[in-house]
Amino acid sequence: MKFIAEIDIMPLKELLDPQGKAIKLGLQNLGITQVEEVRMGKHISLTLEAETEAEARQKVETACKKLLANLIVEDFSYTIASV
Amino acid sequence: MKFIAEIDIMPLKELLDPQGKAIKLGLQNLGITQVEEVRMGKHISLTLEAETEAEARQKVETACKKLLANLIVEDFSYTIASV
Repeated sequence: MKFIAEIDIMPLKELLDPQGKAIKLGLQNLGITQVEEVRMGKHISLTLEAETEAEARQKVETACKKLLANLIVEDFSYTIASV
Repeated sequence: MKFIAEIDIMPLKELLDPQGKAIKLGLQNLGITQVEEVRMGKHISLTLEAETEAEARQKVETACKKLLANLIVEDFSYTIASV
């Protein structure tokens, strides 16, 4: 079966996010006020082949922990859907 | 009311995505094979104040078109939820 995982990797809440701050300023300059918080991270969309959803989930989990996210400064979340 | 918009900005399907290619190679080196396609983009999480969901949606749309996404090489999608 083929699965698509949509993975979000975001800076930890406790950390400063200079990219987010820059976006907030940019939005104010565009006249979009009333923006309270902006945080920016990465989105990865991964298509993979696996026997079961559990297997796909385990692969995605490994990929996030070992390659995609730096768990010291980022956390990750994902959804998996079969296609 | 307060809304949270979760925005994904991804390279257009027609374009090469060198970051995605690099991730795919990295995953193979980790022993995670059977990965068919990887695409990498940005995820932005935006907390904003607005009267109605329609107003929030309009602000997010403007933010994406004018600041966050480069529509020549990227497209965007988002979800909005009130908090």
